[in-house]
Amino acid sequence: VLSFLEALKRILVGRPEATGRRRPKPLRLRTGVPALSTSALSSLAYFPDEILLTLAVAGLAGLQLGPWVGLAVAAVILLLVACYRVSVRAYPDGRGDYQIAKENLGPVPGVVVGSALLLDLALTVAVSMSAAAHYVVAAWPALEGHEGLIAAAGVVSIAVIALRGAGRSPWARALPTLVFVGVLAVVVLVGLVLAASGHLGQAPSAGYDVVPLAQGGLTGLFGLVLVLRAFSTGSAALTGVEAPITGVSDLARPRAANAGRVLVVLGITATALTLSVMWLARATGIKIVEDPSTQLSLHGEPVEDYVQAPVLSQLTQAVLGGGWPVIVFGAVTVVVLLAAGLSGFTAFPRLAYHLATDGYLPRQLRTRGDRMGYSNGILVLAASALLLVLVTGAHLSVLVQVYVVGVFVSFTLSQVGMTRHWTLRIRSVPRGPRRSALHRYRLLAVVGAALSLLVLGVVLITKFTHGAWLAASAIVVLTVGMTRIHAHYGHVDRELAVVGDPSETSLPSRVHALVLVSTVRKPVLRALSYARATRPHHLEAVLVDNDPEKTVRAVKAWTQLNLPAPLTVLASPYRDMLPPLLNHIRRLRARSPRDLVVVYVPEYVVGHWWETLVHNQAGIRLRTRLRREPGVVLSTVPWQLGPVGHAQAEPRPERTREQE
Amino acid sequence: VLSFLEALKRILVGRPEATGRRRPKPLRLRTGVPALSTSALSSLAYFPDEILLTLAVAGLAGLQLGPWVGLAVAAVILLLVACYRVSVRAYPDGRGDYQIAKENLGPVPGVVVGSALLLDLALTVAVSMSAAAHYVVAAWPALEGHEGLIAAAGVVSIAVIALRGAGRSPWARALPTLVFVGVLAVVVLVGLVLAASGHLGQAPSAGYDVVPLAQGGLTGLFGLVLVLRAFSTGSAALTGVEAPITGVSDLARPRAANAGRVLVVLGITATALTLSVMWLARATGIKIVEDPSTQLSLHGEPVEDYVQAPVLSQLTQAVLGGGWPVIVFGAVTVVVLLAAGLSGFTAFPRLAYHLATDGYLPRQLRTRGDRMGYSNGILVLAASALLLVLVTGAHLSVLVQVYVVGVFVSFTLSQVGMTRHWTLRIRSVPRGPRRSALHRYRLLAVVGAALSLLVLGVVLITKFTHGAWLAASAIVVLTVGMTRIHAHYGHVDRELAVVGDPSETSLPSRVHALVLVSTVRKPVLRALSYARATRPHHLEAVLVDNDPEKTVRAVKAWTQLNLPAPLTVLASPYRDMLPPLLNHIRRLRARSPRDLVVVYVPEYVVGHWWETLVHNQAGIRLRTRLRREPGVVLSTVPWQLGPVGHAQAEPRPERTREQE
Repeated sequence: VLSFLEALKRILVGRPEATGRRRPKPLRLRTGVPALSTSALSSLAYFPDEILLTLAVAGLAGLQLGPWVGLAVAAVILLLVACYRVSVRAYPDGRGDYQIAKENLGPVPGVVVGSALLLDLALTVAVSMSAAAHYVVAAWPALEGHEGLIAAAGVVSIAVIALRGAGRSPWARALPTLVFVGVLAVVVLVGLVLAASGHLGQAPSAGYDVVPLAQGGLTGLFGLVLVLRAFSTGSAALTGVEAPITGVSDLARPRAANAGRVLVVLGITATALTLSVMWLARATGIKIVEDPSTQLSLHGEPVEDYVQAPVLSQLTQAVLGGGWPVIVFGAVTVVVLLAAGLSGFTAFPRLAYHLATDGYLPRQLRTRGDRMGYSNGILVLAASALLLVLVTGAHLSVLVQVYVVGVFVSFTLSQVGMTRHWTLRIRSVPRGPRRSALHRYRLLAVVGAALSLLVLGVVLITKFTHGAWLAASAIVVLTVGMTRIHAHYGHVDRELAVVGDPSETSLPSRVHALVLVSTVRKPVLRALSYARATRPHHLEAVLVDNDPEKTVRAVKAWTQLNLPAPLTVLASPYRDMLPPLLNHIRRLRARSPRDLVVVYVPEYVVGHWWETLVHNQAGIRLRTRLRREPGVVLSTVPWQLGPVGHAQAEPRPERTREQE
Repeated sequence: VLSFLEALKRILVGRPEATGRRRPKPLRLRTGVPALSTSALSSLAYFPDEILLTLAVAGLAGLQLGPWVGLAVAAVILLLVACYRVSVRAYPDGRGDYQIAKENLGPVPGVVVGSALLLDLALTVAVSMSAAAHYVVAAWPALEGHEGLIAAAGVVSIAVIALRGAGRSPWARALPTLVFVGVLAVVVLVGLVLAASGHLGQAPSAGYDVVPLAQGGLTGLFGLVLVLRAFSTGSAALTGVEAPITGVSDLARPRAANAGRVLVVLGITATALTLSVMWLARATGIKIVEDPSTQLSLHGEPVEDYVQAPVLSQLTQAVLGGGWPVIVFGAVTVVVLLAAGLSGFTAFPRLAYHLATDGYLPRQLRTRGDRMGYSNGILVLAASALLLVLVTGAHLSVLVQVYVVGVFVSFTLSQVGMTRHWTLRIRSVPRGPRRSALHRYRLLAVVGAALSLLVLGVVLITKFTHGAWLAASAIVVLTVGMTRIHAHYGHVDRELAVVGDPSETSLPSRVHALVLVSTVRKPVLRALSYARATRPHHLEAVLVDNDPEKTVRAVKAWTQLNLPAPLTVLASPYRDMLPPLLNHIRRLRARSPRDLVVVYVPEYVVGHWWETLVHNQAGIRLRTRLRREPGVVLSTVPWQLGPVGHAQAEPRPERTREQE
């Protein structure tokens, strides 16, 4: 019979799978392109909004700059894609930026990149679910104010899907993106045609005025900072551009070449959609602000009870009209965001597995769960994402800042690493077309590193107080933690390595068995019999006298029963169990240090958890303390108490999986 | 070196005391009378307020009844004192009502009385600290609204004093009550003299009008219910009347006779003070209401910003004038309430000790702590009282209701028990003056039982929804819980009793040792050596194959090292440790059921708690599961990992108390 918790787990997660019984099919190009672009393309659901609401601080004039910021973001996407195409050919094993930084720059940069990527993947989940929550609220305004809980429900749902190992078939991974891009392409194309023919309608928010929050508008340093902020916010578009690299092992062979092709299609699609969406947003007059009640006005009056719809929803309404097109596209967007979150649940546990294999994270992250997923990694990710959405209340603007820092830290370090990589390779290749290709690769890496360093600087300077400090400190904390874990494992490995020294297998000279007695009852007699069965050189029963009445009774019973071992009573003036026992053991060990002391502790095993409360838990404290004594083995002799009404417990049948 | 927690405990609680080194001096009459009356007399600080605010529901007419309700309460006090004087001579061992009910009526009534008394002692602490919080707020109105936290701070402080075993000297216990009664007597006497001479002043609240909450006033059934409610609320005056019985062991010999004397003085003092305070309260026009902002009015206008001072404060002001007399008397009152709370911390752990000795509560409640107090009982009481004051926000009216039910449940049952006791005794005594004395005693018990049953009925009927239901259900829950604990202990005692059967000391026929291997490192070799040292009949190393890579490495290392035991690899298709191991053990046991299986588990002991997080905690799950297997002993072979930078840990010096 399964316990309640086991049954719950079985319902949520499903029956265990045997090792190696099921392998997901490889992704061919037609499924691989959409499946590995989910995370990147789904960011179109939220980053245009973030760009516009940053620009709206400068009023209407600011919003006019939207397409130009979009252009800058598109340029960065193209550069990243180009760089990654080269990287994946050099490092085709799926460990991506972490591997590149580690091999070319050393372990610390590798760990920094690992930390940044772990943070980013947690944020991918948090951001996707928060954006999904906003789409849900836009469709269902009564839920406003509960975005955090909706996002949390989303995190829990996809975590359960990930634990079940569901949604891993190629088409299940590909379809959400295909549909989303298809629908978005229709909206964009129709919009562009309407615009060309001069029939493009206006968005619902087109009629509002935007009240500038800053008096200076776009002039001077403040204007520059604002545009740079909008650009760095827009870099959220880079979410998941590295997915084709880390997911390369899911692709059909030739993997690296296919990953390159995925990157090309992804880059072109993302660029084209970014540019058109940003341009159409301006053309249809979409206004997005942080706080509609203070920043929007209609004929000079502030607006009340206005629920701000996301850019894509407003665009759909302007192009195809309100009603069902908006609802359908909203549903499609929520599905693609769920798929993007799920892709984070694939990538994070994998990266954690690689880091754990290299000894930077706890080994438990390498364990495969019932459904073959790295379940500990999934649980850690779910907990982190839950924390993020609940603490921020699914507030996208904050989450996006934290995210962008991670992207550019890892990208900068990986491109510096690639520069080093190509420099080393160039030396070993003779002059010729092969060598000039390597020179081109290196140039690309240098440009990529320089540009991303620049963007990182912009983000850190213009957004430090807006959340970038959080990202920076999280990366530092993770890096220090991972370095310490690695040092610990290294130390343990050195200390525990078997060197073939004969002392390692030498036997203790004699065995001294101590049977711990508190009252003379059956479990003590059983412990005594078991201790005798191991034929120790010395056998002694020990009683710590912390209750004189009980001691007298026990000594009397011991003598009457004529038991085959002497009973030593240890004085305990402070009524404490441990110090007298430890002193006794130390005296024995001091007399003959090469002896082994085995302490036999009779232990009651009760049927119900509450029954443990009414028994002294001395055994637990004893175990914790005796573990620290060298040369002492603690043997627990359990006595299974039957339920009330039975004389002796039947051994509980353990249902093993083989018997199912 | 002490750990942080140990150091904190040492600071709060003090150095441990050796058993029997210090005995508190017995209380002679001059200290015993005030020391054992603390709880009872300190209730004057709050029960007059509770009577008046109940009566104020009927407006000014209600308040006029105050002295009459006081008279009824005083009559009940006298009756209880008379009954207890007889009881303590028959049961002079300090177990009081619990013992009387148990011996004369059987275990279930005994447990009911025990539950009611435990509840009452927890409420004594909660009520005293809540009342003290109200005096603090009356002196310092800025703290209004934080009564719950102030009371909680009071509970924590006296719990620490109780854990330290401080304040146990006779004069420390006697002084607060002596000073309180002395000051109160001065106020009352001066007040009575002033009244006789027609110079008695008016209380601060005398000028206000009381708005009746009920339209009917005092007429009809409602008026009767109201007066009965006021009376049952006033029964809070009975707090701690049983203290001379349960504290009898603290008195100098002849104990029972001295306890009787304490009861007489206590009864006379309490009656006199109750009557005078209630009469003076009416004479000085004191108004006490539940909610001053709606129930009080001045010239027809509702009053605002009025902080209601307790009866004793208003009385002092009317008799001696405002200013320092009120402040001094307030401070004296807070001190006596703290002393009353502390007396609860003496009585509760004692009663819990008796109940634990009889097997109705967990045995841990019999343990004496570092300072010889029953520290587990003190902690349970502190937790319960904290819960009560924080949940109710130190709201006295609710707490007092719960309290009164407990008092009368235990008193009714104990007097029924005494009736039975004397009936049995009468049979064995020949006609004569001795027998007629017994007849008188029995009559007193019958009257006491009848009257307290009547009061209990009144309380339950008139106050059921005001908190009495809570008391009744708490008593039922405690009774059922204690009965189940007793059944469990009885069952365990029967199951574990040694009967002298030779099978109890017979040896298992052979010992089969299993050494659990995961990676071939030093701890495994040590476990193997230790297992070999016990010279088992069969020795086998066992490896559960849940990671094929690791398995291959381990098998290779095992073969290379040429270790003196065969290595069995157990298949684990579901990557789980336990089922394959359990199956293997069961096969061994099925083959020869009289064999003993000893499983040796190598265990790492790390220096810092965080290091345990990066090691697999498989050992804990293994232990939990293997304990339920009959015929299996689990031996943990610890390996003490050194701190980073050391080759092997030095054994940590354990500072035992003997070495201090």
